[in-house]
Amino acid sequence: MSGNTFGKLFTVTTFGESHGQALGAIIDGCPPGLPLCEADLQRDLDRRRPGSSRHTTQRKEPDQVKILSGVFEGKTTGTSIGLLIENTDQRSKDYSKIKDQFRPAHADYTYHHKYGHRDYRGGGRSSARETAVRVAAGAIAKQYLAAQGVQVRGYMSQLGPIKIDFGSWEAVEENAFFCPDPAKVSELEDYMDQLRRDQDSVGAEITVIADGVPVGLGEPVFDRLDADLAHGLMSINAVKGVEIGAGFGCVAQRGSEHRDEMTPEGFLSNHAGGVLGGISSGQPVVARLALKPTSSITTPGRSIDVHGEAVEVVTKGRHDPCVGIRATPIAEAMMAMTLLDHWLRQRGQNGSVSVDTPRLTQR
Amino acid sequence: MSGNTFGKLFTVTTFGESHGQALGAIIDGCPPGLPLCEADLQRDLDRRRPGSSRHTTQRKEPDQVKILSGVFEGKTTGTSIGLLIENTDQRSKDYSKIKDQFRPAHADYTYHHKYGHRDYRGGGRSSARETAVRVAAGAIAKQYLAAQGVQVRGYMSQLGPIKIDFGSWEAVEENAFFCPDPAKVSELEDYMDQLRRDQDSVGAEITVIADGVPVGLGEPVFDRLDADLAHGLMSINAVKGVEIGAGFGCVAQRGSEHRDEMTPEGFLSNHAGGVLGGISSGQPVVARLALKPTSSITTPGRSIDVHGEAVEVVTKGRHDPCVGIRATPIAEAMMAMTLLDHWLRQRGQNGSVSVDTPRLTQR
Amino acid sequence: MSGNTFGKLFTVTTFGESHGQALGAIIDGCPPGLPLCEADLQRDLDRRRPGSSRHTTQRKEPDQVKILSGVFEGKTTGTSIGLLIENTDQRSKDYSKIKDQFRPAHADYTYHHKYGHRDYRGGGRSSARETAVRVAAGAIAKQYLAAQGVQVRGYMSQLGPIKIDFGSWEAVEENAFFCPDPAKVSELEDYMDQLRRDQDSVGAEITVIADGVPVGLGEPVFDRLDADLAHGLMSINAVKGVEIGAGFGCVAQRGSEHRDEMTPEGFLSNHAGGVLGGISSGQPVVARLALKPTSSITTPGRSIDVHGEAVEVVTKGRHDPCVGIRATPIAEAMMAMTLLDHWLRQRGQNGSVSVDTPRLTQR
Amino acid sequence: MSGNTFGKLFTVTTFGESHGQALGAIIDGCPPGLPLCEADLQRDLDRRRPGSSRHTTQRKEPDQVKILSGVFEGKTTGTSIGLLIENTDQRSKDYSKIKDQFRPAHADYTYHHKYGHRDYRGGGRSSARETAVRVAAGAIAKQYLAAQGVQVRGYMSQLGPIKIDFGSWEAVEENAFFCPDPAKVSELEDYMDQLRRDQDSVGAEITVIADGVPVGLGEPVFDRLDADLAHGLMSINAVKGVEIGAGFGCVAQRGSEHRDEMTPEGFLSNHAGGVLGGISSGQPVVARLALKPTSSITTPGRSIDVHGEAVEVVTKGRHDPCVGIRATPIAEAMMAMTLLDHWLRQRGQNGSVSVDTPRLTQR
Repeated sequence: MSGNTFGKLFTVTTFGESHGQALGAIIDGCPPGLPLCEADLQRDLDRRRPGSSRHTTQRKEPDQVKILSGVFEGKTTGTSIGLLIENTDQRSKDYSKIKDQFRPAHADYTYHHKYGHRDYRGGGRSSARETAVRVAAGAIAKQYLAAQGVQVRGYMSQLGPIKIDFGSWEAVEENAFFCPDPAKVSELEDYMDQLRRDQDSVGAEITVIADGVPVGLGEPVFDRLDADLAHGLMSINAVKGVEIGAGFGCVAQRGSEHRDEMTPEGFLSNHAGGVLGGISSGQPVVARLALKPTSSITTPGRSIDVHGEAVEVVTKGRHDPCVGIRATPIAEAMMAMTLLDHWLRQRGQNGSVSVDTPRLTQR
Repeated sequence: MSGNTFGKLFTVTTFGESHGQALGAIIDGCPPGLPLCEADLQRDLDRRRPGSSRHTTQRKEPDQVKILSGVFEGKTTGTSIGLLIENTDQRSKDYSKIKDQFRPAHADYTYHHKYGHRDYRGGGRSSARETAVRVAAGAIAKQYLAAQGVQVRGYMSQLGPIKIDFGSWEAVEENAFFCPDPAKVSELEDYMDQLRRDQDSVGAEITVIADGVPVGLGEPVFDRLDADLAHGLMSINAVKGVEIGAGFGCVAQRGSEHRDEMTPEGFLSNHAGGVLGGISSGQPVVARLALKPTSSITTPGRSIDVHGEAVEVVTKGRHDPCVGIRATPIAEAMMAMTLLDHWLRQRGQNGSVSVDTPRLTQR
Repeated sequence: MSGNTFGKLFTVTTFGESHGQALGAIIDGCPPGLPLCEADLQRDLDRRRPGSSRHTTQRKEPDQVKILSGVFEGKTTGTSIGLLIENTDQRSKDYSKIKDQFRPAHADYTYHHKYGHRDYRGGGRSSARETAVRVAAGAIAKQYLAAQGVQVRGYMSQLGPIKIDFGSWEAVEENAFFCPDPAKVSELEDYMDQLRRDQDSVGAEITVIADGVPVGLGEPVFDRLDADLAHGLMSINAVKGVEIGAGFGCVAQRGSEHRDEMTPEGFLSNHAGGVLGGISSGQPVVARLALKPTSSITTPGRSIDVHGEAVEVVTKGRHDPCVGIRATPIAEAMMAMTLLDHWLRQRGQNGSVSVDTPRLTQR
Repeated sequence: MSGNTFGKLFTVTTFGESHGQALGAIIDGCPPGLPLCEADLQRDLDRRRPGSSRHTTQRKEPDQVKILSGVFEGKTTGTSIGLLIENTDQRSKDYSKIKDQFRPAHADYTYHHKYGHRDYRGGGRSSARETAVRVAAGAIAKQYLAAQGVQVRGYMSQLGPIKIDFGSWEAVEENAFFCPDPAKVSELEDYMDQLRRDQDSVGAEITVIADGVPVGLGEPVFDRLDADLAHGLMSINAVKGVEIGAGFGCVAQRGSEHRDEMTPEGFLSNHAGGVLGGISSGQPVVARLALKPTSSITTPGRSIDVHGEAVEVVTKGRHDPCVGIRATPIAEAMMAMTLLDHWLRQRGQNGSVSVDTPRLTQR
């Protein structure tokens, strides 16, 4: 495995560069008989699509996905599924002037040293444009999980300094930020408008939750469910931190506070975030991820060029001032892929997936 | 792969239960010609060993490791290395009374539901005792990396509410806490003594740093260096969060602050934690992990038994009141394995590992 | 991994059905800097292409391959390579009448029972049409190996009862059979013409040889070079046997005859087929594969339908009367992928690939 | 994965050298709840054990296996199983005189060039002694399969020039050759006695058959059941060829002869060897393997030493004059591991394993 494949039984392998002809993926291991059509994938692609509000990149991509194989007469066949998304709005000339410069905090420098030869247009393979096919592949996983009663949903829980409490899932889908609290949306908009005037960018925190996960998913000791989630979520561009349940908050907790006590009616709390000993406990699986501020800003910065000379870099082009804004569907996709992979592994090794879980606490 | 293997080119597969006859590992893919003897592994095992201070479990295990294969006349042969650590101080009777009860925040409940049949003695396979062989395997990776000028070291950066600033690496080895600030040690001891009187436990944060890592390690897009580190570190028992560089701190950062500017003399900061686009940048690789408080405490807690009936659980036996105290060598081991795996992958796919990295900033 | 990926460091993942929209592959782990263009892949695709002589299927497919990613300005970038081949000459109506019948010796029966739901048109995923993208992927591996002095070539060594001795590599490319002996070509043509009149099909044997392979490729004990070659070659449709070197001939050999003696000038024979202890010896790597006769013939055969009822099956449509005729480029592709995968693994784990091999015997 | 692991869901990783302290294996992915004890493994180890007749090596090894983990109160727990077999009868001095010489047809030459540094004693890691732990691991797979009605058995079908027809499974266990025809045993004994007088060795062919295999095992397109069987069987020391069903015999067959016709009562023949399109068909799975003659013979042979100088080699020590004689349990082990791995994969991806197969033909 050379880096572009995720999963063990449900595997997703991707290709494509920001300014190449197309992006694509092969999904292997999707069980047969799952009803599936392109519209099922398009829904999440549209949620992630660029250019849909003034707070994201102005690149216009329809992100129209084609299913090229693995589906016959409306249902999966169990064979590999080929997906294709053509690029249509590349403007590569925007980038030619910086092909010999390393933009600070970008992958330019590391790709240059690792590979020697790289597609510098729009970040090439390192661009978050690659995540479009992840979202498409994740939609397949979500479709399967939904049929089993598992729902994977995310929301923005912080944008820069603004913390956002959970309101409702309905609210999440009604604004460009995936903000679950309608009362906060105008504050977010104002913040983003000021940020654009400042020619700057900012970080964000996303929370992803899977409800309805049965007990038993996760393979100790290395392929624990939480470890594989950390892998998947940290593999998203710009992510610098991942938490499960109480996360870093558990450092200052005492055991008497952290431990989720149980009664015949279910767990009394969920500091564990739904994972005990690397195995799902039947509680909601809760993860948070921290996304760094976009590196591409128009405020000049010091850097070097390929010859090691000092240069001043101004990153033009069309960029998201906060990559976190469009990250929610990507985080959902990675969590869904991870859960389905472990669902199939549990079924393979242990014969079945227990779906009669005990009653669960509120998160 | 069924969960007990870590890595792709440098792979570590482990077995063993807390109260079984022995723990062991097979290390596959270690390059030939590396000088190696049991003492090289024992050093780190001794750093992790239980019973070495009053602040850790009183179980006495010599944790004497045997190398059964793969080393001939003092050097590795390139074939698989078998390691064995015998258990000597099991006291299984301590656990028999709770074999039908689920200790809160333990893996008892999830193992029971996943496997149906489990070794309940001392947590069986879910016990952190398993990490002993990780430490032994990690010592092999460290040995290889050290010969290439890469040094992997960790320290405790927080215990419960007490934050600890980095002092010196020398200080780390001079106390039972891996505390880098000698001035804090007595405060930590007092805190732990009070904790024991309270019959409670507490969380901790560990920081791990690799110095001397060349540019180019990490395979985008899924097997990024940071994603694989997150996988490895989150797979350690009790870990609930992983950060790279600025970590969750980047949420509130602006791009103009977060981006690590570069000059011909090197990077000017290291918010990235040494990873850009999933590939090492030549800066120190910096990770932090949050460990939850030990679940095994003697303060009674509400739970259920295997029949679903309410029970009150008091966890006796010999337990660490803060699992984070002995976690530093384990975190180092996981980081070292990850780095060596990516070293070999880089060398395989890209022909060589660049070791002439630019001058680096202070972390 | 769910079955549609081959290799560990140089991986090829494929999708596509016989009568779907397109076939495709993702090649992951190709080293950066390799000169590559579509014409390099097209050459082998044309050698395998259907409809190019009267002895193969009359389906006309241009098999035009597109490289969608991973190549920039004429050279590979080290990132994943997306390949696409569109289907243009599907005639799916030919198959609709047998969608509920199991053609004897076909995968109809097993796909039906395994997946429940299958694309029956033209054999769907089980069709040898899938091998087109293997040939394209294999051409990339060949390109890399050729630059290192390794040449992978094959020929037909038997067609039905007609044994064919090796003549010259030039001859192989001058006839539709990949027959290395020009004097045999008319006999083969006559045999095939008679076969068509008999409404029957026949088996074939292909020999593949890699010259210039350095010492040291292959990872004992399970991923031996010969074991991985056997895996790759047996995964080609219709293959029922694989031999390395003396193959089944070694059963009746004595040790004094089989062992390839060595002198300072090199090996004196090559019964080993270039592999000792699972590792390449520097001699030519020699493999042979047996392909069964095409199952699709117009002579009626007894079978059952999906309801278990007896039926008589006549397989119309356009089929190769001997699948072995077009199998040579496919066998070359699988051998090339296997060798490159092990080249990269050797370089990763052992630091370098030794290319100063001793002088070699004639095969 | 670095070469010492076999399988994807049911994985076997091994270590150990011929003259090291011990051999061992970790079995990962064995389903929980399987009754298992050391005696279950010992049975097959005893069938393979050296020194049990005058026709095999005179090295005396009890091959006593210990189960170190993964089994609790007589049943597997679903966690990794550690196995250990100590070496007791090493006589390493036998080999020291040839540590700088390459024995013809041995792995000495390739290990030397691949690894630089090798354990030359008794062939080190390249010795067939490694197969002892494969047999132990295979016994676990057999145990699981047997509980599902699948029986994996093998026999010697040819020794040197002597072809052996199948007689009965009972006969197989009643002689040192795994010969299924009692009438042939004395001829085999005479042949072996003469061979020893000739100071020579000879090849052999083993046939392995799995009865009771359900329809549906095997993952197209690369991880076909037959491709994975070929991988597993070719990974056995000394194997140079693998056939499924008609094998190389299918080259001269016509389609009308080869295709296994079906009636409502079942298949009418089994040229396919139980695999269609890479998936088991419900017929017996039939494989044959060719083993080369032992390389270690006392008849002098030409070779070179590590300095490239010509030497004459006479291989003393204790060796099997026909490695094929003890190969039957090893071949069974590899087939059983492969079948169980695919059983679990089928169950994982496709939800269940169909066990109501149609009535089957005689093999």
